[in-house]
Order: sequence, then C-alpha cells, then structure tokens
Amino acid sequence: MSDKILQRVRIVMVYTSHPGNIGAAARAMKNMGLSQLVLVAPADFPGYEACQRAAGADDILNQATVVETLEQALQGCVFVAGTSARSRTIDWSVYSPEDCAQTCLTHAADADCDVAVVFGRERSGLTNKELELCNALVHIPTSEVYSSLNVAAAVQILCYELRRTALKNVSAEPLPQGKKHSDDVLASMDALAGLYQHLFSVLEQVRFFGTHEPDIVMRRIKGLFNRAGTTQREVAIFRGICSAIQGRKYRRDKH
Amino acid sequence: MSDKILQRVRIVMVYTSHPGNIGAAARAMKNMGLSQLVLVAPADFPGYEACQRAAGADDILNQATVVETLEQALQGCVFVAGTSARSRTIDWSVYSPEDCAQTCLTHAADADCDVAVVFGRERSGLTNKELELCNALVHIPTSEVYSSLNVAAAVQILCYELRRTALKNVSAEPLPQGKKHSDDVLASMDALAGLYQHLFSVLEQVRFFGTHEPDIVMRRIKGLFNRAGTTQREVAIFRGICSAIQGRKYRRDKH
Repeated sequence: MSDKILQRVRIVMVYTSHPGNIGAAARAMKNMGLSQLVLVAPADFPGYEACQRAAGADDILNQATVVETLEQALQGCVFVAGTSARSRTIDWSVYSPEDCAQTCLTHAADADCDVAVVFGRERSGLTNKELELCNALVHIPTSEVYSSLNVAAAVQILCYELRRTALKNVSAEPLPQGKKHSDDVLASMDALAGLYQHLFSVLEQVRFFGTHEPDIVMRRIKGLFNRAGTTQREVAIFRGICSAIQGRKYRRDKH
Repeated sequence: MSDKILQRVRIVMVYTSHPGNIGAAARAMKNMGLSQLVLVAPADFPGYEACQRAAGADDILNQATVVETLEQALQGCVFVAGTSARSRTIDWSVYSPEDCAQTCLTHAADADCDVAVVFGRERSGLTNKELELCNALVHIPTSEVYSSLNVAAAVQILCYELRRTALKNVSAEPLPQGKKHSDDVLASMDALAGLYQHLFSVLEQVRFFGTHEPDIVMRRIKGLFNRAGTTQREVAIFRGICSAIQGRKYRRDKH
C-alpha cells in the first residue's frame, strides 16, 4: 500500500563535483517521497552549498551515506539501473524512465529489498566499469541538439517517475477529495434542461433566432455546458442572468 | 512528424525572484526541445546568475520575452495550464503532468497555435486572479510531508512530460481525422477576453449586478468557459446573443 515502497529505492550519486547538485537532488528526492541518498566519493560534502540548495530537505543530506566505491553503495541491492546520456553499443537493456521506475519498484516489492538508480559525474557520466555493476541502463530522452542534462535534473525526473509509478500501482484507491461546497456539485439533467428552456425563451425574446437556426444554436450551447460539467451554482447564475434580461428576478427555490 | 510541436509551447514564469531558477528552467527547456520562454516581471533578469545556471542554454535566455503582465504573456494562446501546488476548491479541471502535456500538444496541433504552461512565484505560486486566465490547473504529485517543489524542477518535470508525449505521439500512427470546420478550433485568450467584456457590459445593462458581486460572477462565468475549452464558433454565438440583448447585430469581422 501507499508509497512506502519508495523507501526501498537508493539514489546513488557517483563522484559528484558540485555540492549544489547534491542539495538539489536531496530536495527532489524528498519532494517525491524518497529518502535514501548514497554518495560515492563526493568532491565537496557535507557543506553549506548542498544544504542551501536542499532547502527543507537537509534531513536527507544528514542521513546520506558516504562511501568510497560504487560496489559499497550497491551492497544488498537486488536491481541496479545506471543512467546514461548516450545510447551505448554494449548489451544492456536500455529503459525509458517510466519502464525503469516500474522495473525498480517491481523488483523491490518482489524481493522486499533495496534497488538503486545510479547517476554519474557531471561531465562524463558513468564509466563502462561502473555500468558493468548495473542490471540495466536508463536513458532520459533529450533533444539531440542539447542533451547535457544537469545531474540534479536527471535525479528529479527519475524520482518523479518513481513516485508516479508508485501512486499508479496503488491505483484504484479513491483520491482524497477536498470538501466541496454543495453548490459545486454537478447540476442534474433536469436543472440543465430548465436552463436550456429558459435560455431558449430569452433568445426568442431578444429576437436572436431571426438570423440563426434555433435547433443548431441550442445544440451548440448545450454542447458547451455539457462539456464543461456545469455545476448547480453555475446554472443558478445563468438562470439569474436570463431572468435579469427578462426584467425579472430569478428565485432559485421555484423553477 | 518529429517534436516540432514543442515549439508551440510557451513556458511562462511569473514574478520569478531568483535568477538561478530562470537559468535552470532555460536549460531544462532546451534539454527537452522547447524554446519559448516568457518572463512576467522577473526580479533580476538578464544577468550573470541566470546565464551561469543555463549552462549551454543561453540562447533560450537571449530569445526570452520579458513582459509586464500575465495577460501579455498569454496573448494568442489557445490553451493555458497553470501549475498549482495545492488542490483548490474552485472549479478548474486539475490535470496530472502527463494529461496536461497531452492536452497542451493536442490543442496546439489542432489549432496550430501556441499554448502555455504557467509557473508562479517561488514562495506563493499563482494568485487566484492569475489562475482565472488559465483553462486548467496542473498539479505535480509530491510527498505530503514536503511538497515545496523548486520552480525550475517543476519546469523540468513538465518539459520532460511534454517531450515524452511528443515522442509518443510521433510513434503512434496518426489518427484518421475528419476534416474539422475551422470554427471548431479553440478560441484564443484574446477572443475570450472580448467575450467576457461583452458579457460584462450586458450584465451591467440588464442590472444583473444589483444583487450579485461582479467579480465573483465574472470569475464563475470565466471558469465555466475556460473549463469547457470554448471554440471560436461558440464565442461568436455568445457574442451574437450579447449583441441581440443589446438590440444590436454582432458583426464577427469587427469586434
């Protein structure tokens, strides 16, 4: 149930040189409900800049694990996806972010174990040696003319897909809804029919139909109101307008 | 054909206070193949910090349009989605990022016109008045315990979804489409603004506002038309009705 499964996903950042990117990644993770950040030999961590960019997500930074090698970062994981900007010739499965997210969460749930998504250096990504530790590659589709995705932006996209997938898997659960004002509920068919009739009589009265075919006009007007999902309140407003045009007051209690 | 349709999507940033966020947004856009950045009264632009965070995407910054009001930013758009961190009680359709992306690209392709996604202030997002200019809201699902998404991260996610959708649409077989009557395309924001103004003057004339607060009434009426995705033809019908009520003929060619 719920998005607890996201706690099973490690975000692993390898040799990150810019601390701002670590902070931004932490914020992206927390936004999307992830918590396990593992840093492989970061150039500058911990520090002020990472904290600043993390905004309210400094708890993620405080809990972050710092290790020396990618092997250490991946200990205990049942599935590892490595991000890659290039499509490579070597034979890995290359996943889209959404397929990667689904595969990660399926493996994590099946095995009740951690999985990991690995992000490489800002300039050069992951080495082939590092990719050999991965079960699959994940490639974020980018424009051909400008494919250099910021590493924190890549973390953001993957975390977003992971959350989206987790929520989709929970799926059929009804969404919690804000309490609605009773007037915000959809108007009944009868209420709409009453509105259409009222509108029709107004249009006759102002001689609108002189130049327009009544059936076609009414069909188009109904189409708009039906498409919008008109509420009770809106019906009352438009009936009030009709009454005002007719020089009368519209009383809601008696149609 | 290709992802050219992404050129039809404006990313509109409203009252952005931190220039680094503008730079990061530009980079995110270029990565995903978007190019139209519109800035409404940015606090600090152009400048060094935006360029630095844009990395190689400074062409997006150089081409960016700076305007004073959101209305100016949206001129000529047939569909506008406003990002919102909260689920609101007022009556807008709320889209997920993927549904928003699909809806934007569909409208852009159908009308061969621009569409826009609007991002609010870093601290407080978009005001209700700004949201009234939108056809729909888009909500990025975040963790309940930490929902404050960085604005550039939000731009990144929407641009990613737009690109993903564009690529998906390309790979899908084009649907056989009945020839659309040109009047069935969505009305532009300007055309809708003209309708609202016309309606307002009619309501004044028939003394509807005696008992009703003008701002609230107009907001609700706009809400309905925006939500419905009103077409050019429907705007013409309602303007015709307004003119008939005023005892005049509405001539479409001159507003």
